Amino acid sequence: MPDLLAVEEPLEIRLGYGARTDRQQRSVSVTMRTPGHDFELALGFLFTEGIIQDLSQIHTVRYCTDAGRQEAIENIVRVKLTPDTVVDWRTTERNFYTTSSCGVCGKASIDAVRVATCPVLPPAHPFVDAELIHDLPAKLRQAQAIFEHTGGLHAAALFDTTGQLSLLREDVGRHNALDKVIGAALGAGLLPLHQSILFLSGRISFELVQKAVVAGISVIAAVGAPSSLAVQMAEEFGVTLLGFVRNNTFNLYSGAGRLIVPDLTSAS
Amino acid sequence: MPDLLAVEEPLEIRLGYGARTDRQQRSVSVTMRTPGHDFELALGFLFTEGIIQDLSQIHTVRYCTDAGRQEAIENIVRVKLTPDTVVDWRTTERNFYTTSSCGVCGKASIDAVRVATCPVLPPAHPFVDAELIHDLPAKLRQAQAIFEHTGGLHAAALFDTTGQLSLLREDVGRHNALDKVIGAALGAGLLPLHQSILFLSGRISFELVQKAVVAGISVIAAVGAPSSLAVQMAEEFGVTLLGFVRNNTFNLYSGAGRLIVPDLTSAS
Repeated sequence: MPDLLAVEEPLEIRLGYGARTDRQQRSVSVTMRTPGHDFELALGFLFTEGIIQDLSQIHTVRYCTDAGRQEAIENIVRVKLTPDTVVDWRTTERNFYTTSSCGVCGKASIDAVRVATCPVLPPAHPFVDAELIHDLPAKLRQAQAIFEHTGGLHAAALFDTTGQLSLLREDVGRHNALDKVIGAALGAGLLPLHQSILFLSGRISFELVQKAVVAGISVIAAVGAPSSLAVQMAEEFGVTLLGFVRNNTFNLYSGAGRLIVPDLTSAS
Repeated sequence: MPDLLAVEEPLEIRLGYGARTDRQQRSVSVTMRTPGHDFELALGFLFTEGIIQDLSQIHTVRYCTDAGRQEAIENIVRVKLTPDTVVDWRTTERNFYTTSSCGVCGKASIDAVRVATCPVLPPAHPFVDAELIHDLPAKLRQAQAIFEHTGGLHAAALFDTTGQLSLLREDVGRHNALDKVIGAALGAGLLPLHQSILFLSGRISFELVQKAVVAGISVIAAVGAPSSLAVQMAEEFGVTLLGFVRNNTFNLYSGAGRLIVPDLTSAS
């Protein structure tokens, strides 16, 4: 019996300047992703990796039109920067988290994010109703029509403080789903996302928290579990982190100060 | 209430030769992984990425002992090659799947695996009892004690044709879990794994099928869904691919010839 499959194809992101400069064009990433929202993915990736800081640095984003084969054309995105944009090419290397010789550890990874992107979240004040969190899984599933068909896609979604879905992206790669969301928000001029709740369909890795923090997201909730380093990252940057959001319960790992919990006194 | 977390820390893999040569030592990968079985992870990664082809090419594998901080020491693995081992450093680059200028597509990714590692699986003949597949999820869960505690770890396991578990590894990253399994098998002289069933706790990506194929695995089953490119890869290399293995059912995507299905004639 035929079965619907989540599409996975490679996407290469190339970064450079206009044709009239002799500055190099470089391939900064090849990621296996679900086609769709590729420009958002490219922008989100460049932003959350600290390679660009602002939409004004972007000249154009388009597919590689001189690709030989039809199916290859939409698998390469060329991002051209404005002439005065300076790129620290070291941040485009995959070994980004290695800050020094023999200095690889979780703390160094966190420090690398701090140095590369300097994200600062607003001080914690209660603005998210804890009750509202319980409804997010059902709202996500409802919106995630593709998920029901293939079971093969991760989702990342932004909700506002009334619990309304504002942005949803899906991908075979959970990091790509988040990059698409952040790239879309960047393109729409919505960054930093200080008033948004990020909801994830799966588990929470260090890199997902890192990307969220760079985009100014202060509340992250997920159906799955966070890793140790995800929690450490959330604590260091003051992120509100919720895991195992299911069946009307969740685990709170950090940043309780942003939650509105009406019956806290009676429950304690 | 405290909650157990799956540990996530960066692991850097450095590749080089002994001190007496002037050949360069290079950092070939930084991956976020769950500490444990790090030497297996390093070996498995180098093997499945096509950087090494045989255990005899390895001189030593050890942690970086001159790392400054205690927590960093066990986050860097130095792999030293024997003097006569030749490395194609291009395969160590993350953009491995880009085979040519503007030639990025799923087909090119599959071709790159073919060129880089030349894996050949044995012809399909029935050697796996389809009934046995149904028991794998329960066996995996039973063996996966950590999973029950944290919910944050992916698992990769090898079963023999009687359905007995022979190797199980876990990690926050599903690719790492599989690299650990393959690295362990490489170290034990068990490659190629022509008579093993690989069972995965999650979804099946292109890269997971690629790694399995390089290790000679011809039967892959998983709790989750495969991606389109995972199925394409399985078809091209003749892998038996099963997804959604749960509740006594599964989906067959390719390679039916390896399954023993006793009641096929009565059911058709």
